[in-house]
Amino acid sequence: MKKIALLGATGSIGTNTIDVVQAYPERFKIISLTFHRNEQKGREVIKKLHPQFVGVGSLALKNQLEKEFPEIRFGFGEEGLVEAATLADVDIVLTAVTGSVGLMPTMAAIRRKKDIALANKETLVMAGQWVMAAAKEHQVKILPVDSEHSAIFQCLEGQPVGNVKELVITASGGSFRDLTREELKTVTLEQALKHPNWSMGKKITIDSSTMMNKGLEVIEAHWLFDVEYDKIKVVLHKDSVVHSMIVLQDGAYLAQLGASDMREPIQYALTYPERLAIKNEKEFDLTQIGQLHFDKMDFQRFPMLALAFSVGKKGGAYPTVYNAANEIAANAFIEGKIPYLAIEALVEKAVNEYEETTEVTFEEVIKVDKETRKNVESWIKKEGNI
Amino acid sequence: MKKIALLGATGSIGTNTIDVVQAYPERFKIISLTFHRNEQKGREVIKKLHPQFVGVGSLALKNQLEKEFPEIRFGFGEEGLVEAATLADVDIVLTAVTGSVGLMPTMAAIRRKKDIALANKETLVMAGQWVMAAAKEHQVKILPVDSEHSAIFQCLEGQPVGNVKELVITASGGSFRDLTREELKTVTLEQALKHPNWSMGKKITIDSSTMMNKGLEVIEAHWLFDVEYDKIKVVLHKDSVVHSMIVLQDGAYLAQLGASDMREPIQYALTYPERLAIKNEKEFDLTQIGQLHFDKMDFQRFPMLALAFSVGKKGGAYPTVYNAANEIAANAFIEGKIPYLAIEALVEKAVNEYEETTEVTFEEVIKVDKETRKNVESWIKKEGNI
Repeated sequence: MKKIALLGATGSIGTNTIDVVQAYPERFKIISLTFHRNEQKGREVIKKLHPQFVGVGSLALKNQLEKEFPEIRFGFGEEGLVEAATLADVDIVLTAVTGSVGLMPTMAAIRRKKDIALANKETLVMAGQWVMAAAKEHQVKILPVDSEHSAIFQCLEGQPVGNVKELVITASGGSFRDLTREELKTVTLEQALKHPNWSMGKKITIDSSTMMNKGLEVIEAHWLFDVEYDKIKVVLHKDSVVHSMIVLQDGAYLAQLGASDMREPIQYALTYPERLAIKNEKEFDLTQIGQLHFDKMDFQRFPMLALAFSVGKKGGAYPTVYNAANEIAANAFIEGKIPYLAIEALVEKAVNEYEETTEVTFEEVIKVDKETRKNVESWIKKEGNI
Repeated sequence: MKKIALLGATGSIGTNTIDVVQAYPERFKIISLTFHRNEQKGREVIKKLHPQFVGVGSLALKNQLEKEFPEIRFGFGEEGLVEAATLADVDIVLTAVTGSVGLMPTMAAIRRKKDIALANKETLVMAGQWVMAAAKEHQVKILPVDSEHSAIFQCLEGQPVGNVKELVITASGGSFRDLTREELKTVTLEQALKHPNWSMGKKITIDSSTMMNKGLEVIEAHWLFDVEYDKIKVVLHKDSVVHSMIVLQDGAYLAQLGASDMREPIQYALTYPERLAIKNEKEFDLTQIGQLHFDKMDFQRFPMLALAFSVGKKGGAYPTVYNAANEIAANAFIEGKIPYLAIEALVEKAVNEYEETTEVTFEEVIKVDKETRKNVESWIKKEGNI
């Protein structure tokens, strides 16, 4: 029986994880979980799973739920996340929270020798260097849950390290892939939230449309698989059938493909190296799909992707600035505070204004993250619609 | 330094193998080789490689070459093949001969603990049961060289056996994939030899057009990977970019893809589990290729493929009959003795007339092989253009 801590239980990945766990009750049990503020769904999840511990977003919510569920222990905020992730019985932590809040509980769990099923990109984008070093030190597995990284992880299985020449991350292109930059000026939130192939949370759907999401994936892949940026390629693959690929020294490609179903990478992270049938599997028939399309990625059209390689190569806290600025900007767009193209402008401004002269520590990265958020928030307030 | 016996040095696979070997002279050396009757190319190869031993097709050719190359030992016929394959220093035997002559030297090599790089399908089609058992007993690796089987082998690397749900062999469809059965009645040898994607020998190009080649591959895959026939699928993939795939228990596909370059699977069989760059690699850029196509395989259009599953499931010497009849028939077509559709008719007749009542031994399979050839030859003589 694998005992799981599920951080972010009410989001899209959280919901899929619960599906996977409930399909194999003899194999998996979620013994702790967290959610931020989706009370209604949170209550449902608690009733369904009877966890030992639940972390929530606020003290008020904690107090309220304690009355409703006196048999369950509650916590809140970062401490709540850390406690959920480090409970003595937990074998593996599935971090499905969005944004930088994933970092601290992940680091705490690694130090307590919990394996990590990582659906939170920001953890590695902000602190890949320290997270991977800690995982190595504590002999902990970091198992990717993102479909792209899971695909690469699956392709790499059994490959001697020296065999790998390149990683090829596929990109659907997001909701606005067929629009010119000129046309982007007037797009609405509603349009941005229509992802052509995947049903995901709001923030990640916006990030897909700006290619920020792919940028974060590039940086994540760099840390996860210890591959130089020049060896990470991105190709446009509108079908989202090939989830990603690797290229080997002899020119052979290995690709992982299948249905657009997040349960597959989630379950594989939980069953690795074994595989189990997905209950009520989505149909997948290549001969019905008929055609797969591949195209060059346009770095002019998607400047956030070009910027990812640039901040990634600079290293230090540059990726942190890139990510933090985007978190504030994307959410401001979701809240209707800024127009779509201001997301990119704010990220670029934050990266351009940041300057690093000496090597940063883990603690400094956390500080840079907070400062960047404050800066971008103040720019949004000051300038209004940038 | 890996010491190689190359059986079939003047054919298409042989030539590619020599390319691979000469690209890495510090890693590989061909110390013995065979060729059948291509004297001119044979002489070139001998001068290039200076092998210790050479097997040829006839005593006359052996006598002649002994005078020309007094420093080299020669043999001929089946004995020559066996000697080349079992030379004391040989580490790995690459069997690139066409047809059933590959079987005996392969078995002899396995018994002498030589690894096998197998480009000769007939070895497993005729005697998969005994070849795989011998390989297991003598702890010998059977490394596939066929692009499809190499692809599957590459995808399977690192997978626990229980993870594998299906194999998916891709088929280009061969030279006549766009013709109806009616149109096949009048096709010529010249047309049949124009394979859309691969440059190969005559017999295998004809076999590709009748889908016999794919049928043999299905049977080969059954033995090589120990997978039931119901779990082996064939899909039409005109592009020949995806060389084959596997499906895992959780529905994920792993695919191997790349340029149509036989040096890749040949080299991988020789370097496994390592990979080396292919010298003067063919360019391969998915974004230039742009589209990949997949389609259902039409078993009515290609009755030889349906027959492969049928003889495979029956087991015993049925696949031997299927293969032997085709060898005679395909060569008769190449020699202009029978029309194209007579190939299928002869194979069907041979399989239909064969009946097996008790379990066959290895020796009996060899006998059935010879008898089938005799029968089909006599039918061709008697009936002329069937």
